Order: sequence, then structure tokens, then C-alpha cells
Amino acid sequence: LNLPLGYRYASTYAGIRKDKRDDLALIVSGVPAASAAVFTQNRAAAAPVRLSRRNLRESRGLTGAILINAGNANCATRTGDKVALSTVRATAKMLRLAPAQVLAASTGVIGVELDAELILKSLPALKEGLIEDGFGQVARAIMTTDLVEKTESVELKLRRGTIRIAGMTKGSGMIQPRMATTLGFVVTDAMLAPAALNRMLRVGNAVSYDCISVDGDTSTNDTLAIMANGACGFRPDAKEMPAVQEALTALLQSLAKQIARDGEGAKKLIEIQVSGATRDDKAIAIARSIANSPLVKTAVAGNDPNWGRILCAAGNAGVEFDPAKVTIEMQGMTVCKRGLAAPFSESELKANLEAKDVLIRFAIDGAGKGRATFWTCDLTEGYIRINASYRT
Amino acid sequence: LNLPLGYRYASTYAGIRKDKRDDLALIVSGVPAASAAVFTQNRAAAAPVRLSRRNLRESRGLTGAILINAGNANCATRTGDKVALSTVRATAKMLRLAPAQVLAASTGVIGVELDAELILKSLPALKEGLIEDGFGQVARAIMTTDLVEKTESVELKLRRGTIRIAGMTKGSGMIQPRMATTLGFVVTDAMLAPAALNRMLRVGNAVSYDCISVDGDTSTNDTLAIMANGACGFRPDAKEMPAVQEALTALLQSLAKQIARDGEGAKKLIEIQVSGATRDDKAIAIARSIANSPLVKTAVAGNDPNWGRILCAAGNAGVEFDPAKVTIEMQGMTVCKRGLAAPFSESELKANLEAKDVLIRFAIDGAGKGRATFWTCDLTEGYIRINASYRT
Repeated sequence: LNLPLGYRYASTYAGIRKDKRDDLALIVSGVPAASAAVFTQNRAAAAPVRLSRRNLRESRGLTGAILINAGNANCATRTGDKVALSTVRATAKMLRLAPAQVLAASTGVIGVELDAELILKSLPALKEGLIEDGFGQVARAIMTTDLVEKTESVELKLRRGTIRIAGMTKGSGMIQPRMATTLGFVVTDAMLAPAALNRMLRVGNAVSYDCISVDGDTSTNDTLAIMANGACGFRPDAKEMPAVQEALTALLQSLAKQIARDGEGAKKLIEIQVSGATRDDKAIAIARSIANSPLVKTAVAGNDPNWGRILCAAGNAGVEFDPAKVTIEMQGMTVCKRGLAAPFSESELKANLEAKDVLIRFAIDGAGKGRATFWTCDLTEGYIRINASYRT
Repeated sequence: LNLPLGYRYASTYAGIRKDKRDDLALIVSGVPAASAAVFTQNRAAAAPVRLSRRNLRESRGLTGAILINAGNANCATRTGDKVALSTVRATAKMLRLAPAQVLAASTGVIGVELDAELILKSLPALKEGLIEDGFGQVARAIMTTDLVEKTESVELKLRRGTIRIAGMTKGSGMIQPRMATTLGFVVTDAMLAPAALNRMLRVGNAVSYDCISVDGDTSTNDTLAIMANGACGFRPDAKEMPAVQEALTALLQSLAKQIARDGEGAKKLIEIQVSGATRDDKAIAIARSIANSPLVKTAVAGNDPNWGRILCAAGNAGVEFDPAKVTIEMQGMTVCKRGLAAPFSESELKANLEAKDVLIRFAIDGAGKGRATFWTCDLTEGYIRINASYRT
């Protein structure tokens, strides 16, 4: 990983979750950084989400640190707001930041009180442990049912020098971000104004985190935050901004795809490409409907080229289209042409579907320029096993 | 079953599906009956759905027979419209009905050509086999992955005599009707005008078939049709109409609940009651969101009182509500009060959740009068096993 300059990271075990994996983490920028975030659209947003929204507004997009815990979502809890506020204030005081310059994020079980003391008494150890190469350690501390840690980094050479962007994320269930995800943190040493950073995050989010689904459930705690501390020492030229956007978008897509691939119980990443819709948002709606169909996802799990389910799921997207103009491809093989069965070798396609990456193309013939790419995973018995007993 | 007067039924094995279960069925009224139907809202509606819609319009709500096949959805097929039309015409000719007085319905695999010959050559045997007590036989012939046949009947004593209503239905996967279901057929000997029958069907459908979900997938073939042949010999009084509506609604709810209980892989029926929303449709949206949450459904499968997932799913319904006013009950035990964990005996509730019927109540404190009752089933490994290999 090419880590951006000017950030330090720490994690520790605070006793929030039962197994002894680190469950408390801190990301700190050497100077307060331009920052932006997108949050869950769930009505039952958790206390740290509500506090971070407010802090971002009050600080006008300047953030010095992000405090994260796993093992408890701090959502639907009696003391939730107090716990989020007191731990954020203590963190700010310890790091000599304004309270609004600290963001908070939590992930884990909903409806169980989070003991602020566990966090407060671990803060000194966290500060003590801050190191420049602690990025991976934090990426591991925020994992819940994740099987693998999820990180990505990119280096971009501009006229006046190099900027670095690095991101980490978590999540494998309760995933259909719709504007954010369970948790994602991106740091860069690029020098960018908060407003520009906010725009770039939203543009990138719309084609990454907003285009994945594991189970169609949007969590109460989704947060995707970015900090840009300017430690690279120069501003990108105006004409270099598209390249910066492209690098950020690619990084966000990599993180989002890692989430879909590690979906609970998943054995395969499914990419769904839709084209020929009248608008991009209609293409996304079709892709999302296919991605959320348990019947499509179980068919892929069973290597079954059951394209009828794909057409059926698309038909449920609430988008007008003529089924007689639809062509569907699976793993590059045409299975449905103009709404009708196309001849294909069942045995060959079944073998191709055994791959870890499955591509479904859904094309509507015609002049429509709306397109979308969406990622999900197959639905296996593992998902049931994990979720029939996660809480207890 | 108290069968209505004036109907005959037949089923036979036409060779459409591989196993030798009957796959072709006919419901015939002695005289053309007032009729109404609701159909799938899926954009990729099957050929028999499109034909039946047209026939109902052309006949102005007069139907003499319904021809049904299982094993093939006749959807996304090159010859679909021709097959539906030719088999309906042949049936009409055989029964001396106008072609528009026959409805068609199909269920089964999508995208495989349906051989009209198989149906045409079986029609004489069907006619030969028509009997008054063949109702259950037809109910079995329309089953696909269903484990049990689903029927209900009711008898209603009115001032001038008795009317009988009987219904059959099928379906256990690809179930989220939104205005209809895979297949449902209701016959009554009541004397009702087509327009009144149409209204009554829609009123009943809105609180029955429209309020169930197994997996959130709406099939391409959903059809719920009713025939009222007036064989009872009298018209109900205007003031008796509410009682007729009530009887029909109760019958439709019984059929709909039987579908949810027999959901693919399901071991439990889950009833979700929502109250306190500002309007009924908002209550339905919340109930639907809870019912479609894989996380809620797997928790119920695992006897896990994980109410946080219920609150989270409700928060995703796109309906405004204050989480701090929410009370959640499971099996009559309060697990969440005013948005916070309520004390309850975990072991007692876990034991109660082992029942075959699970009740979830989601109440928003306040003046809202919007309510809904919705039915779904738990999500088990059985669903995955069935659907990873249904087609092949």
C-alpha cells in the first residue's frame, strides 16, 4: 500500500466484542484535513452517524480524527448520543482538536448499550499506539463478519508532484448502501477544498458504494468518510482534477467490489452491466433489481444459466422497457436474444459459471444511452448459517 | 370443501413437465360467469397474462372457463402468443364459448417453448374428465415447488339463501405478488355483476395477496381470477354486500397465508402487524420492508430475537417515522420500547420463537391510524437448496 503522507493509525482491544480481536481504532491526520462523508439513508440512523453529520456541518468540512469501534452499532440505545458525544469529546481533547473535528463510526449489534468507559479508558493506549503504518491494523479492527480485510491505494503523478489515496472498508452483510456503506474510510494527502472533496466523494460514491448489494438491507450505521490533509504540499491544477476524480472513483469501486465479493456466505462476485435504458438511473434500477433477486443469486450459486429469472427480476424494477428488445449474456455467452431463448451450450456455460467472477450483461436494443454497472454476490447456504445465529 | 354450485373441474397429464404429475387443468362454469382478475405488474408479463387481460376486456367480464398449465410459464417464448391463443380458441370451441370467454394461465420455467400440441391433444380427455368434485385435483395439478395443496372455501347464509365461495392457489417461490400471485382461482355461485365482482376482488386482494412475500420476486405469470356464475339463484341485497366482501376477503387471506407458510424452504409463517403509521400504504411499506429483509427472516429461522434487524429493515422502507416512538413485540413479548431495548427473558422468547407461527408487532406511538398486516416466511438453507437447481 502506498500510504498518503501525514496520517497515523492505531487500534486496540477495548473489550467491546467478546473475541479478543481489536475493536477500537483511530485515524488521525497531522493537521485538520478537508473532509466529506456520505451516510446511511436508514431512518433509524445510529448515534455516531447523527453526531458525525452534525460535526461535519459545524466544522465546515475539517476533520482531524475518526474514532471507530466494532462489535456494537451504538444504535437504538438509551445512552447512544451521550456515548458518542463523550467519547468524541475526549478524543478531541486528547488530540487538541475542536470537538466537531472528530468523526465517530460504529458497527456491530443493534440495540445493546455501548459502555463509554470501555472506550474512554482505552484512549491513552490508542494515542500511544499511533503509527504511520498502522493502516492495515485499523482495517482489521473494523471487520465484523468479514473474512478478509479490504483496502486499496493509488498513487497519481501530477505536474507538480505525486498524490496518494488509500482506503479501507468493511462489511459483508446488511449491505445495500444507497449512498454509503457500512464503514469506509479514505485518506489522501492531496490538497483539496472541503466543497470540492465533497463533490468528488459523491460522484465516486454514486458508481461504487451506491452500486453494490449483498442482501438488500441498508444498515443503520453506513458511513463513508474521506480526509484530504494536503500533506503532498501542492494543489492540483484545475485540468488535473478529472484525473484525481478518476483515481478516487477507481479506488472506491475497488473497495466496493471487495465488499460484494466478501458478502456473507458468498463464493462469487457477480457484475451486472445494464445498457440501453433511457437514463442511467433507470439502468441502475434494473441492475439493482437483478442484483437483489434471491432467485438470480441462488441460480448463480448453483451454476445454473437460468436467464428467465434475470428477465423476471428486471421486469420488477419499475422501469418501462420492451422485453422483446432485451438481450442477456452470461459469461459472454448470449442466452436470450430479443426476449427469447438463444441457443447456447448448456454444459459449456455451466462450466463457465463455476468461475469466481460472473458477468451478466442485460442490453436493451435501441437508442437509450443509460448504463450502469452493479456488483453483488451469489446467495448460498452460508448466508443462512451466518445470519440465523449472528447475534446470540 | 363446500363447493359452489355450477362448476366442473378436470386435470390430466399432458407431458409438459417431466415428472408424471398432472400439468393441465380446466375450470368450467355451467354458464358464462361474471369474472374479474388481477395480474402481475412485471414488465415481462407472460403470453397467457396478456391474452387473459385482453379477453376479460373483450368479454366485458364474462368467463366460461379457465385453462391452466403447470411446468412451463409460456413467458419469453417465440411462439408464446400463438400457443396461448390457439389453445384458448380450441378450448372455447370445444366448450361452445366465445374465444374471449376463456382465460389462460401458465406457471413453470421461463424461456422454454411450450408445445401447443401437447395441450391440444389433451383437450378431449380434459373435457371427458370434467366432474363437479374435481376441485382438489385441479389444485394439485397447478402446484410446482409447492409441498401442499392450497384451498379454502366458505359458505355464507344470506336472507334469500346460501352462497358458496371456493378458492385454490399455488406458489412458494418468486412470490411478492403486488396485486396478484403466481396463480389463484376463486369460484362462487353468488350472483354478482362483473363490475361489482371486480371491485370486490381488488378490495380483497389489497389485504391478502398484495400483503405476502416469500422472496421479494414478482413472477411474470401472476394471475388471481374469480368467477361468479349466479348458480345460487338470487342476488344478494345491497346491505348484504359487506358480508359477501368480508367472506371473500377472509378466503383470499387464507389462501395468501397458505402460500407464505409454504414458501420455499420455509418452516414458519411470520405475521407482521404494523400500526401507528400516518396512512395504511405507509404501514404496508414498513411491513413489506420487514418481510423482505433476509436478515429478519434468517433470524426468525434461528429463533433469534434480533429486533435490531426489524428496526433496521423498517428504517429502509422509505417512510418517515421517529425511531424513538417505536415499540416492537415478538410473540407478544416487548423487545423494544420507544426505540430502545426492553428487558425480556431471552431463553423464554427463544423458546417461543420455535413455534410454527411467529408474530411480529411494530407499533409507532402516536395518532397515526395507518395499519397493515403482512405475511412472509422464514429464510432457511432449504430455499437455497431448492433454487440453486430448480431449472436444470
